[in-house]
Amino acid sequence: MEGDLQKLLGRNLRAYRQARGLSQEDFAELLEVHRTYMGGIERGERNLTLKSVERIAEKLGVDAVTLLQS
Amino acid sequence: MEGDLQKLLGRNLRAYRQARGLSQEDFAELLEVHRTYMGGIERGERNLTLKSVERIAEKLGVDAVTLLQS
Repeated sequence: MEGDLQKLLGRNLRAYRQARGLSQEDFAELLEVHRTYMGGIERGERNLTLKSVERIAEKLGVDAVTLLQS
Repeated sequence: MEGDLQKLLGRNLRAYRQARGLSQEDFAELLEVHRTYMGGIERGERNLTLKSVERIAEKLGVDAVTLLQS
């Protein structure tokens, strides 16, 4: 259903962040995005483009499609 | 690398279309997008949003993430 991928991305990023004990602020800095934008991504509210997902994955050193898998 | 996901999406959609013997025109009609836009997606030139990928997947009756896997 439309919107599922962005919710899944948000859950995966939140899990990644929390597993490393990072605050949203630290994480936003790491990903070079604004903190409020980061919050929106984690809540699954942002309909990112494929390239945006790839940029995030590259910064985290993970394969982009893994951020879109449950 | 940035742009890999859209190229993968294009290859997967082309394979799906050709396996069913559909022309790009038929496929564009099925997906309710313009034919030239369809060509750009297949060539990996379009940086789609997650929701656009989901809309295409829904029309094809496949799971969206499968369109982004090699």
